[in-house]
Amino acid sequence: MSKKKKLRVIPIGGLGEIGMNMTLIEYGDDMIVIDCGMSFPADDMLGIDLVIPDITYLLEHVEKLRGVFITHGHEDHIGALPYLMRRVSVPLYATKLTMALIDKKFEEHGLTGIVEEHVVSYGTVVDAGCFSVEFIKTNHSIQDAAAFAIRTPVGMLVHTGDFKVDYTPVYGDPIDLHRFAELGSEGVLALMCDSTNATREGFTMSESTVGRTFDDIFASNTGRRIIVATFASNVDRVQQIVNTAYKFDRKVVVEGRSMVNTISTAVELGYVTVPEGTLIEIDDLKKYEDEKTVLITTGSQGESMAALSRMASGMHRKVRITANDTVVLSSTPIPGNEKAVYKVINELSEKGARVIFQDTHVSGHACSEEIKLIYSLVRPTYSIPVHGEHRHLVAQARIAEQLGIPEENTFIMRVGDVLEFGDNGAAVSEHVTAGSIFVDGLGVGDVGNVVLRDRHNLAENGIMVVAITVDSESREILSGPRIVSRGFIYVKESEEFIDETETMVVEAVHNLVEKKGKADVGALRNAIRDALRDLIWKRMRRNPVILPIIMEI
Amino acid sequence: MSKKKKLRVIPIGGLGEIGMNMTLIEYGDDMIVIDCGMSFPADDMLGIDLVIPDITYLLEHVEKLRGVFITHGHEDHIGALPYLMRRVSVPLYATKLTMALIDKKFEEHGLTGIVEEHVVSYGTVVDAGCFSVEFIKTNHSIQDAAAFAIRTPVGMLVHTGDFKVDYTPVYGDPIDLHRFAELGSEGVLALMCDSTNATREGFTMSESTVGRTFDDIFASNTGRRIIVATFASNVDRVQQIVNTAYKFDRKVVVEGRSMVNTISTAVELGYVTVPEGTLIEIDDLKKYEDEKTVLITTGSQGESMAALSRMASGMHRKVRITANDTVVLSSTPIPGNEKAVYKVINELSEKGARVIFQDTHVSGHACSEEIKLIYSLVRPTYSIPVHGEHRHLVAQARIAEQLGIPEENTFIMRVGDVLEFGDNGAAVSEHVTAGSIFVDGLGVGDVGNVVLRDRHNLAENGIMVVAITVDSESREILSGPRIVSRGFIYVKESEEFIDETETMVVEAVHNLVEKKGKADVGALRNAIRDALRDLIWKRMRRNPVILPIIMEI
Repeated sequence: MSKKKKLRVIPIGGLGEIGMNMTLIEYGDDMIVIDCGMSFPADDMLGIDLVIPDITYLLEHVEKLRGVFITHGHEDHIGALPYLMRRVSVPLYATKLTMALIDKKFEEHGLTGIVEEHVVSYGTVVDAGCFSVEFIKTNHSIQDAAAFAIRTPVGMLVHTGDFKVDYTPVYGDPIDLHRFAELGSEGVLALMCDSTNATREGFTMSESTVGRTFDDIFASNTGRRIIVATFASNVDRVQQIVNTAYKFDRKVVVEGRSMVNTISTAVELGYVTVPEGTLIEIDDLKKYEDEKTVLITTGSQGESMAALSRMASGMHRKVRITANDTVVLSSTPIPGNEKAVYKVINELSEKGARVIFQDTHVSGHACSEEIKLIYSLVRPTYSIPVHGEHRHLVAQARIAEQLGIPEENTFIMRVGDVLEFGDNGAAVSEHVTAGSIFVDGLGVGDVGNVVLRDRHNLAENGIMVVAITVDSESREILSGPRIVSRGFIYVKESEEFIDETETMVVEAVHNLVEKKGKADVGALRNAIRDALRDLIWKRMRRNPVILPIIMEI
Repeated sequence: MSKKKKLRVIPIGGLGEIGMNMTLIEYGDDMIVIDCGMSFPADDMLGIDLVIPDITYLLEHVEKLRGVFITHGHEDHIGALPYLMRRVSVPLYATKLTMALIDKKFEEHGLTGIVEEHVVSYGTVVDAGCFSVEFIKTNHSIQDAAAFAIRTPVGMLVHTGDFKVDYTPVYGDPIDLHRFAELGSEGVLALMCDSTNATREGFTMSESTVGRTFDDIFASNTGRRIIVATFASNVDRVQQIVNTAYKFDRKVVVEGRSMVNTISTAVELGYVTVPEGTLIEIDDLKKYEDEKTVLITTGSQGESMAALSRMASGMHRKVRITANDTVVLSSTPIPGNEKAVYKVINELSEKGARVIFQDTHVSGHACSEEIKLIYSLVRPTYSIPVHGEHRHLVAQARIAEQLGIPEENTFIMRVGDVLEFGDNGAAVSEHVTAGSIFVDGLGVGDVGNVVLRDRHNLAENGIMVVAITVDSESREILSGPRIVSRGFIYVKESEEFIDETETMVVEAVHNLVEKKGKADVGALRNAIRDALRDLIWKRMRRNPVILPIIMEI
């Protein structure tokens, strides 16, 4: 090992307020990427469609890049891949279902066939420069999730990805605890472990427990149509609903674009098994009695454009909610979505539907006891909590401390922090560009803080535009003032106020010209803006954006 | 009883999406008002300061109004009183603490001394036209809460107000269950009962249980400063924090304007007892060791301007958060506030503070078993669930059904519905104007749906203003096009695009004039708007508000 070279771990997202996941691992002339996700915009990111990680640092060192490794197929881990893979040409590694979901995404972005893809099975070790990456079986709310054992010249990093410990998963094997134990024996430098549920005590229940709940619900809702909303990507959940439906002799309709996409992919690849004749098209729903059907749909988070919201508000073209419907929301609201979820429940309930929204969901993330289990098997020297808000990272740090990892060996990082491992231990040595890039329409990164601040102002207060044309010499007003507003007051009902405003503008211009002679355009603009701001504040205690436009002839 | 006259119950707010509470009770030439609250704006009410009930119907029949009766001193029951009492002159009735809080509010609105106020004690019966209103002791998260027994020519209505059953309240007596039982024996036509927690099983815990939790927290946080955030109006909670502080020999600072207001009123009136020397000023905080102080503060809901948020973000002028602080959030997030609360927790945790936010709150509203108790005592013929979203009202209706009230005797109303009780039973007979009025600055009701829609558009997409001055005859462009945008793109970085836009505008005007000869201003505006909309959509898949201004000379 060269004296100068150090192992560098750089989170580009996935920590704190920056929800989408992306981590760079760097050593000397080699670099790899773990995950490349997107986020949905926060409430205050007005008009933003989605948020992707800032890859400035990666692009500056793109010649080092040896490969991109994806832990699983959720949007916050794969969503920004089209933006990344369009700009780099290195191999992409993922498990089978993950890669199939990535391919769907590439298709939408016109990137099919452009990326060198490698489907990796559990146990396989991929070499990438000085690194090697081993794929390890875990459990999560989507199948084919992987943890990574990343061997580096300095020691081994273990990255759990998003995981839970499910001893009785619906599909496939339980998490490969044996392998985690073997890695622990081999010696692990640092563990990067999922923090999402670190604040929760105990153990996350097995996905298969939800199946029993569905059985109970179906048994007590005979004679009614059943609609179950859940996450589009939760393939195991859909499998269990299908199983129960089959048991109760009901036909199943899958509705909602993202769910149809995911489930059709999962069925094709054999991750979901549907008994012959059980799945029907939505158009055939009317051929069956209510008590013979189940709809599985998107919209469990109250997303306004999703199928369930459209049904609830009466906007769905093919499904009308009636008093004979039982609607099951098989998910827990993600913080921030509660109000939207309750809105949907209220609308369903106003249409007479029976709504069930408790005890029909289990999380896909490890609670504190599972985190303790992984630490105990892996026995890392260092702890780097990942995937969570600051409070979650802190909760995991406390757990690590309880398990004997000294406080100074745990790093609660911020995106862009560079954590270096060298001969003298580990330390955050510098900070590189990282964080969020806003995507608005086709624009990537062209909406920044100035534009967002303007949008906030406009949203809160509206805008008043005042246009005048003046003589370029005498400053006499040749045309106008023309006053137009949006989002401020309803002009047709406020003619008197608009008249007053016009008078005020004319006066402001005259006063200025009288005092200063030939006032420049900037001075005219300021005089008009100040006069109007004062008038409007005095009259209505409001503060619209005031935009004077001075045209000269 | 006249054949024509009917008892009319008209909710003006407090149901479904309309959060603030107000109900009209009408019979013949008499009308009374129960509560007159405000709401805080929903997320989609951009720029709105607060929401008050639409009193159009009341004002149309103001000559019938005999009195205004208030159940308790929370904003959603008293907040709109200044707007109502400014426009009517009838007596106002409330209990002592409630009236003191109303007086604070009148003071802020310059209404002191204008309203005829009557402080009413429990057991008192107030006559108002053909009605009489008896005040009955209940428990809630503020003291002096009352239920009303409203005797009418047609029978008795019982309105619970917001309530819970607390056998061991921190201050004063438990709810007067005896009186509810006596009313039941006398015979009750209809029960209007709080639905807030109707979806929750069991019984709401006594407020006094929180005191024991505080004792535990203080005992395990010796050596640290303790900051407790809770609702400004929860006087009993503050009392318990003071009690524990005194027990652990700590000084108490109360911080946050609304909390200082409420607590000083409560102390003056004797609703809170603070041992001599316990309360200190915030400026004296620095004279004491951390382990000798407690701050009680607002901001437990993550409200961005409240004291706790300002401490968390480092913006508070007098309190700096350190790693030696333990912060207790003694409340549960109201749906919609979760993200803001977690933001505050993350910020506190980044500053090293220990944050406790579970198991330190009990609700002020009755759960299902308490609702069953009240129904069982009151034994109403009819049930009118109040105070809740639709899903809560439905949950109470199910409870009523379980207790033997036939489904057709339960009315899930909407605001503005008129429920009439006459010789032939009860029915919703008509619908009157009711619902939300927006207050923005000094403007009451002048921001309506058109303005809000504009604000949404501006918030999502920004605005682009295009001004040109044209010859009124030839349509030659004399000045401009001048292009200004806000919230769309950052113009200084997009000069090329602005150039393209200007060219496009000039072309659009020329084409139109060539084709049509003297095009009118409307046609010019449309041509410019269409051309720009297409260009912007093609280039960036965005849809800003486009505002062409054509000036003529």
